[in-house]
Amino acid sequence: MTETPAPLTGLRFSKGHGTGNDFVLVADPDGERDIAPEQVAQLCDRHRGIGGDGLIRAVRSVHLPEGAALLEQNPGAEWFMDYRNGDGSLSEMCGNGVRVFVHFLIDQGLAALAEGEALTIGTRGGVKVVARTENGYRVDMGPWEFIFPAQAQERGMDSLVDAAGLDVARPALSVSMGNPHTVVALADLAELDGTVLTVAPSVTPIPPYGTNVEFAVPAEPLVTDDVGNITMRVHERGVGETLSCGTGACAAAAATRFWAGSDAPDLWAVAVPGGTVGVRFFPGPDGREHVELSGPAAIVAEGVLA
Amino acid sequence: MTETPAPLTGLRFSKGHGTGNDFVLVADPDGERDIAPEQVAQLCDRHRGIGGDGLIRAVRSVHLPEGAALLEQNPGAEWFMDYRNGDGSLSEMCGNGVRVFVHFLIDQGLAALAEGEALTIGTRGGVKVVARTENGYRVDMGPWEFIFPAQAQERGMDSLVDAAGLDVARPALSVSMGNPHTVVALADLAELDGTVLTVAPSVTPIPPYGTNVEFAVPAEPLVTDDVGNITMRVHERGVGETLSCGTGACAAAAATRFWAGSDAPDLWAVAVPGGTVGVRFFPGPDGREHVELSGPAAIVAEGVLA
Repeated sequence: MTETPAPLTGLRFSKGHGTGNDFVLVADPDGERDIAPEQVAQLCDRHRGIGGDGLIRAVRSVHLPEGAALLEQNPGAEWFMDYRNGDGSLSEMCGNGVRVFVHFLIDQGLAALAEGEALTIGTRGGVKVVARTENGYRVDMGPWEFIFPAQAQERGMDSLVDAAGLDVARPALSVSMGNPHTVVALADLAELDGTVLTVAPSVTPIPPYGTNVEFAVPAEPLVTDDVGNITMRVHERGVGETLSCGTGACAAAAATRFWAGSDAPDLWAVAVPGGTVGVRFFPGPDGREHVELSGPAAIVAEGVLA
Repeated sequence: MTETPAPLTGLRFSKGHGTGNDFVLVADPDGERDIAPEQVAQLCDRHRGIGGDGLIRAVRSVHLPEGAALLEQNPGAEWFMDYRNGDGSLSEMCGNGVRVFVHFLIDQGLAALAEGEALTIGTRGGVKVVARTENGYRVDMGPWEFIFPAQAQERGMDSLVDAAGLDVARPALSVSMGNPHTVVALADLAELDGTVLTVAPSVTPIPPYGTNVEFAVPAEPLVTDDVGNITMRVHERGVGETLSCGTGACAAAAATRFWAGSDAPDLWAVAVPGGTVGVRFFPGPDGREHVELSGPAAIVAEGVLA
């Protein structure tokens, strides 16, 4: 039976972004306002709706089956980030979105967080611990790994990437952050500017589930005050070029750090078109090397649907 | 002297659209809140702002020099549409925007208008008379004319247009609605769907001030119940493909009507990707043939800037 979803008239929302990755945010503490996939798509329509890369609904975990399941092992995960892509499909997590989510909770008075304090958040990708920093938020994004470990260890590359504007195809390294990435190093910012991303770059071979492609330029010198610096642009799988991709910044830092060798730093500043994020590598609680992503979050406006 | 503009925190706005041509709308009856070009660009930024093709400020004409000048000859033009492009530059008029502007005045309680009644509006392109219809609004867009009249009359075409996805360059006809348009007729909807507009089409020769390009498919049969029917897509000069272009729909109807010959109707329904608009040709008060554009207008949400 197909039910017509209740109209969204009167729905309160905020619009926010993290380094240009933007979201429509809805506070629904008691889980009373489910939003149907076609309504999410309407809200995220940039011309006929509010516009956003996705919709984030803030619901107390206890009111969602996915959230209640997490609460058993993580009783501190009071809030659940119900994240949907702009087309209405479900999504697990978003590195930029989780910062904006916590900022939204604070903005709405649903959570309080001093600098240095952390909040445990439920997501479809498991619980995430988000800490407030001086200028934003940082979150443990989990472990990274090579998609083709044998080739990566042996040759430092596993594929070739070509894009309009490049003279020849370049060697690249594929890194998983839960989702797949293929990282290409370019020589300088002029080459980065000249790369055309209105069409998808070609990757040979393509990783099993497709891939996001990061074009990264290492700074000269690469490391200043123990921080590695890169500038990147990203083409997201199925989306196109975006202003920022959190997991893409993590992957680009991981690949560049691997290429730089054993004395490369653990802390990286990654400039994306929408701003700058920080990436830090550290030993995770599971014994694997984890990646922490940090960056700003902003609420732009608050409103009511007509 | 460059002054830093006052921050926009607390500014009330609405978001609205006409067939997918979307705007940030601000009511400023007493002209107290000028918005600097860089602030307009911030507001219209689709990722880091509210997002829109442009910003429309509703100001009583008497409070703007451009408006006060119009009032002398048009004392009924109480309201002025202060329209800016998304990059912050001034703009004269917008066929879809003027419908959304009047709908916004009514929504805000600043004007009342029953079906069939009309409101005179000041714009930088002169006064416009906007009437309320059953499903939206209609406005006299002024006269149309050929850009290359000799070639148009002699051969029915004046240029060649090529675009990715087309097998060969096509003959086209250039029409001015105050701004320039070049109209190409395609054979069917499959050909229209296959035309790639992520890159600008090539026009030979290009009209003096550049041109917007409309790809129009005449319906089969062209005329039903005395209404001509076309489906079109548009590439806007300096912008790219858009969901709707009011003057483009007028130009496409004018060219198709000219090609169809002397018994072609005066009333046209033009389907654009963002909806359907109506175009009507009638003898204007200045003795020239004028074009009336009609279509819907919607307010999506109301909000306050953080």
